[in-house]
Order: sequence, then structure tokens, then C-alpha cells
Amino acid sequence: VQTIEWVDGAVVIVDQTALPGRTVQLRLSTVEELVDAIRRLAVRGAPALGVAGAFGVALAARQHAGDADGLARAVALVETARPTAVNLARGARRAAALLPDAGAVLAEALAVHAEEIASSAALAVLGADLVAELCGVAPRLLTHCNTGALAAVEGGTALAVVFELHRRGRLAEVIAAETRPLLQGSRLTAWELGQAGVPFRLAVDSAGPFLMARGLIDAVILGADRICANGDVVNKVGSYAHALGARAAGIPFICVAPESTVDLATASGDLVDIEDRGAAEVVGFAGVPVAPPGAGAVNPAFDVTPHDLVTAIVTERRVVRLDRDEKL
Amino acid sequence: VQTIEWVDGAVVIVDQTALPGRTVQLRLSTVEELVDAIRRLAVRGAPALGVAGAFGVALAARQHAGDADGLARAVALVETARPTAVNLARGARRAAALLPDAGAVLAEALAVHAEEIASSAALAVLGADLVAELCGVAPRLLTHCNTGALAAVEGGTALAVVFELHRRGRLAEVIAAETRPLLQGSRLTAWELGQAGVPFRLAVDSAGPFLMARGLIDAVILGADRICANGDVVNKVGSYAHALGARAAGIPFICVAPESTVDLATASGDLVDIEDRGAAEVVGFAGVPVAPPGAGAVNPAFDVTPHDLVTAIVTERRVVRLDRDEKL
Repeated sequence: VQTIEWVDGAVVIVDQTALPGRTVQLRLSTVEELVDAIRRLAVRGAPALGVAGAFGVALAARQHAGDADGLARAVALVETARPTAVNLARGARRAAALLPDAGAVLAEALAVHAEEIASSAALAVLGADLVAELCGVAPRLLTHCNTGALAAVEGGTALAVVFELHRRGRLAEVIAAETRPLLQGSRLTAWELGQAGVPFRLAVDSAGPFLMARGLIDAVILGADRICANGDVVNKVGSYAHALGARAAGIPFICVAPESTVDLATASGDLVDIEDRGAAEVVGFAGVPVAPPGAGAVNPAFDVTPHDLVTAIVTERRVVRLDRDEKL
Repeated sequence: VQTIEWVDGAVVIVDQTALPGRTVQLRLSTVEELVDAIRRLAVRGAPALGVAGAFGVALAARQHAGDADGLARAVALVETARPTAVNLARGARRAAALLPDAGAVLAEALAVHAEEIASSAALAVLGADLVAELCGVAPRLLTHCNTGALAAVEGGTALAVVFELHRRGRLAEVIAAETRPLLQGSRLTAWELGQAGVPFRLAVDSAGPFLMARGLIDAVILGADRICANGDVVNKVGSYAHALGARAAGIPFICVAPESTVDLATASGDLVDIEDRGAAEVVGFAGVPVAPPGAGAVNPAFDVTPHDLVTAIVTERRVVRLDRDEKL
């Protein structure tokens, strides 16, 4: 089962809001259904969002054939469904460049889909080689959010590196940060690691820097929603705190993402629109309220890790050692 | 209503596991009931635990009158109910020094209780003066865990400073970190701030350092479970990550605690036994399972903030400016 695929004129996704309890596939036949699924994170993860963006334009091309205005509005809706990950808008624009030829649009979207699968396979090898070089034969890795197959089409990004290390027998343990507020670490990463037989333990997000200080982590490895031209990494909120912890503990902080996440048009992280997802996700979880009624919240879904805290960026094509002043 | 008090031969506490939904008082008549309440955090917070330790010995003195062995076992049970906060064992030992005279033990325990109330009032003023000096007239403060009346008897520690600033009209906003896994920030601090009319918003713990980087926080203010001789602060897990964020953002990190939390017998934080509370708190959220069945977790309840990240320690007697190389 792929996280996102094109089946008989519709987008079929694994509904990530139902995991780990149930594995449910959703069939999304309209732009509106797809955009709703993106907004409520039924499909998420930078690479998967890139594919969703391209498929969304393919849906729009069929839904609004012969209606240029409607088509433009639908494409804009897809492009802006979430603001932070560059992949979504980039995937949408790449497919939209071939409008109004619906067949060419779909072919391009399927190419985006195929490229993400190929990227995962390639970056897994480059990333595993780097971790082995930096951390030796039995590293204990901390990861944040979900960067596995569920964030991509197959394989994933940082978690693809973890799976590759596990296949090589060169991994001691993964600490998966739970990733509040939506608990992608507990719900998705734990599920994927368990399925793959990778030894892991969960931790609350805020324990990360302390576990590093106590010598229990050899490296931090995670994904990205946007990598700016200067190497600043925009990723799930909490990544920056782990980066501060890694720097204080003197361990590597490795970011793994496809080239489609690298955004040379954005000079630095302070220029990126950071999505605030509102109070509801913070004052409770899964419909269970914990805070007093009426409590507000500030809820940035992402944060920015400055490039000087990043040891290396791994893509399917290259390893950029920011710690050696290499540039993107 | 006091968080913990002695009423007619028993310890009466506000059950903090029921808040903010319900305000329930529990009457604890035996050492076993009290120890159970301490272990499951029905009563918690370093100052409140000091009082609980002293009251626990008062219960033991009545329960085991004339049975020296049983009494010694009961006192040990109280002293070791939780390992990290120094106040618990210290309160217990202070009362136990007067054994077997049950009347003298109770008088000493009531003195501990009265002193914690007086400490809160005094440190609130010293802390508010310090925040005003460091941050000006309208500071935006981030706090972690719960350090209000619910962590003490009345008033609290860091939150007592917040309340004092609010009374003075010298506070813009509090960001309360939710404090996973047990959500003392969302459940208790939000409730206390709301009751007092203090403007606040919640945030997930891992957002703290990013909010600081974006210039949205003027200082971090929190409590302590043990302050070591060198100034290392042992406090709720997540405090260290906020301290790293504060240092990177160039804002003060202020620790507020009564002198009863200062442990000159422990040289530094690496010598403190950090309680691991097991996986159950992490793999679920407010009683709702979120991780796949069987997932393990590492769950340190506390962490250590090295003294060089601490701007100042405020007690009821003094302000120790660690940033100016002052010593405890």
C-alpha cells in the first residue's frame, strides 16, 4: 500500500488521522476533498504533499475542463492548502505548467510520484553512509515527527535512513519524539518502526535535549518541510529545540529531505510563513479536552533551525556538510 | 482552600489529578494513603511535597505509636515515595527528628506548612522586583509545569511571582508550556492563571525555544525540585530545553524556589537520581492510548539545567545572580 497514489481518476491516500488504530484508505475525487484531507493532515509530510499538490492539479484539470477561471481557482486552492512545506506549491506548479492538457498534467504528476519513490531509495543509502561515518556501528538516533513511508510515497526521508541502517545491522536504537500536538511520532513513527522491527522507545519532545545531555543519543536525524538557500531548516515544531540540545551535547544534527524540499528562492528561515494551526490541537487531543474551557494557545506547526546548528543536509543527490561550510 | 493542610488528625489535599474538570478534596488518614497520593501525583510540587513529607511523619507517629520498627519503615516509605525533589525527604526528616513525640512532630510539620506559606509571599515580591528590573514594565513570560498554589500551600513559587506582577499591572502575557506527559501546564497552570485573570496562552513544550527565537518571550520563569550547591537546577523535564532556548535568544532564565529546595549537600545535577516514571504516561494522552500497543518509552520526569544557563535563583530570602557569578 502506498501512502498516496493515483487510481482510476482519483487520489487514494492512507488516512493518517486513523493510524495507528486503523489502516483506512480514502478515495479523493475532487479538489475540495483533497484540500480538506491536506488541511486536516490526513495526508502530510513534505514529499507526500508534493505528490498531493501535483495530483490535486490533475484532479482540477478534469473537474474544471474548459473553465479557465474555475481551474485557476482550484489550482490556487491546492497550492495554498498549507503554507509552510515548499513541496506542496512546487508539486502543484510543476503540474500546472502543463495545463490545460489534462493528460500531460497527469503524466507530470505521476512523474513527481515516481521521483519521490526513487529519491527515498537514493537518500536512504547516502544518509546511512553518513550516519555510519559520523556515529560508528551502533548509533542511537533521535528522530522527530514522522518521516517514513507515511510522509512520502514509499520509504520516506530520515526514517528511510533508519530503515537502511537497520537492514545493514548498524543501528542500536531509535528514540522517537512523540511530536505534540498531533503526535505523529507516537502514532505514525512508532507504528512504522514497529512494523519494520526496528528497536525504539518513545519520549516526550521536551526530553530530547536532556537525553542528549545524558549521553543517550548519538545523533539527531529528521526531515524538513523547507530548506532555505542558506541552509536554514524549516521543520516540525520541536526540531529547533533538538538542534540546540544536539549542539550542547556535541552530537550531529542531520536533516534528510529530497531536493524537492530545497528552496533556493527563499534566502533564510525568517522569511518563511509559519503556519499557526490554532488552539484546538493544543488544548486537547483526539477530542479529549485537558485545558480549562476557553483557554487559548499559540500553535506554530513548524520552527526554524538556523543553518549553523545543522551538521549536514542529505538529499537523493548529495550530502551537504554545513558544518564544513559547504553551501547548497 | 489550601492545597495541603492538616485537619482533625488527617492530611487533606486537593486532588490534582481531577483538575481542571473537578475540584475534589481527599482525606488521607494513613501513611499508605499519603504515599499513594504522592506517587500518583495527586499532591505534587516541591514545596507541597515538603509539607506532605512532614505531615506523613505525623501520620506515622500516630499510626505506629509504640512500634519503633513499624514507625521507621513508615518514615522511610514517606521519605522515598518520590526520589527527585529534595523537599519531600527534607520535610520528612525534619519532622522525624522529633520522634517519637507525636505532638512535637505535628507541631514541626505545621511549622513547615506555615513556613511554605510565608516563603511564597516573600519570594513573590523579590521575584517580581527582579523581573521588573530585567524585563521592564510589560514582560511576556514563559513558564513550565505548575508552580502556583497547587504546587505549594498557597501562592506558589514562579507563579506567585507572576501573580504579583499581575497585581502590580506589570505583566503583558504568560505563555504556559503544557508540560507533557502529565500536562500540569494545561491542566493546573492554565486553571490557576484563568482563576486569577492573568492573560495567558498555552503552547506545546517544544514550541518554547522557537517562540523565544521569534522574539515573543522576554524571560523564562519556573520552579525547581532541587537546586544543587553549584546552582544546577533539577526541575520538570523540558526546563533544560527552555534554558537552551533562552540562552540562544539572549533572554533571562529565572528559577524561583524556597530555600527548602536548595540542597547544598548535592554538589551538582549529575548526582541527582532522576525519576523515570515508565511508559504508560507517554504512550497515552489524558488516558487515551495513542501509540501502537506494546510501544516502550523513556520517561525522565525531570531534567537538569546547568548553572551556567541560569540567570538568577530567587528564594524567599535572596536573589542569587548566577549570571554575575554569585554563589549559593
